[in-house]
Amino acid sequence: MKLLYAPPSPFARKARVAVIEKGLEDRIELVMVNPMGDDAALLAANPLSKIPALILDDGRSLIDSALICEYLDGLRDTNPLIPNGSDRYTVLADAYLANGVLEAAVVCRLEMFRPEEIRWPVWLERQHKAIERGLKALETRVDSLGGAITLAQINVGILLEYLDFRLPDLDWRAAQPNLAAWQKVFSKRPAMVATRPAENPLAW
Amino acid sequence: MKLLYAPPSPFARKARVAVIEKGLEDRIELVMVNPMGDDAALLAANPLSKIPALILDDGRSLIDSALICEYLDGLRDTNPLIPNGSDRYTVLADAYLANGVLEAAVVCRLEMFRPEEIRWPVWLERQHKAIERGLKALETRVDSLGGAITLAQINVGILLEYLDFRLPDLDWRAAQPNLAAWQKVFSKRPAMVATRPAENPLAW
Repeated sequence: MKLLYAPPSPFARKARVAVIEKGLEDRIELVMVNPMGDDAALLAANPLSKIPALILDDGRSLIDSALICEYLDGLRDTNPLIPNGSDRYTVLADAYLANGVLEAAVVCRLEMFRPEEIRWPVWLERQHKAIERGLKALETRVDSLGGAITLAQINVGILLEYLDFRLPDLDWRAAQPNLAAWQKVFSKRPAMVATRPAENPLAW
Repeated sequence: MKLLYAPPSPFARKARVAVIEKGLEDRIELVMVNPMGDDAALLAANPLSKIPALILDDGRSLIDSALICEYLDGLRDTNPLIPNGSDRYTVLADAYLANGVLEAAVVCRLEMFRPEEIRWPVWLERQHKAIERGLKALETRVDSLGGAITLAQINVGILLEYLDFRLPDLDWRAAQPNLAAWQKVFSKRPAMVATRPAENPLAW
């Protein structure tokens, strides 16, 4: 299988971390693409030109980081990222909340691509409020993120590093000391270290 | 349980259609909210102020239409929207592709909320290209959407009606005759009729 990704994409990073945490490195070939170019390989796998995209061995492809992580999780029983028992929707609720905050942060980032005179402060403020409230909610969830690796942990860890990476002025640690302490440990996981983007590797 | 929604939201509509297709009307109370206001009930259920949000009987909430539809699907065995067998990732691949096209259409719609002088043609063109390519891909999938109701059918049906609703100039039927013929039948399902938004019910 081939996983199409770009180094700075936090959504693609979720899939890349999942590959490592599940021990699937030998089955998944990583292929770097540019979602902002008209990349033929990417367009063939995902007509929306978004990453990550996973090309299966039969040629079909899966898109969307949530779907790809679920699929990767199902390839091996070890280290279940999404538990099947009563914890399932606890993990997924936290995972989707973290992903929603990440989406708001990416919207902020996308706004910065616009020429300065056509940015919309109203829209940016809506995203910032969503990020603030979302982080506040996640702060209450830290103790429930649990010990074994889950999709919720991956999404929270990638969200927090993305905030440092792209919205460093936010200073999320001040209002979320529990998340800050948790992140300090989580960021040392080999899968997080191996997938961390270099500083500003590409403009987008 | 309570499902927070707004009539014109295509994402909330996915959850509303799922409720009806699964025969869960007696277990789910529909609560109308305004995601663009600071709606206290919505913010308590989803700090991101987005719909749909599903408040479970124990007070926890689930966000994101994909997660909510999966949860609703699991509440009853009848009419499985996401099959568990070999068709699972065929249905989910089509469902996420349709959802991705819908997201691009909603981005176009959101751009129209901006004061005219701060719209960004580059961004709109990117979305239009994604919609065009996505529809072309979905056109090849019509025969595979199958007979029994699935999440893929729901997402495709809601996408196509959203295009008529918010991007009527697109004329998607001209280039996608198979989708057009499929949609003509699908749009008559009681769940689609019951959840169809009135013409321009709210500005957003």
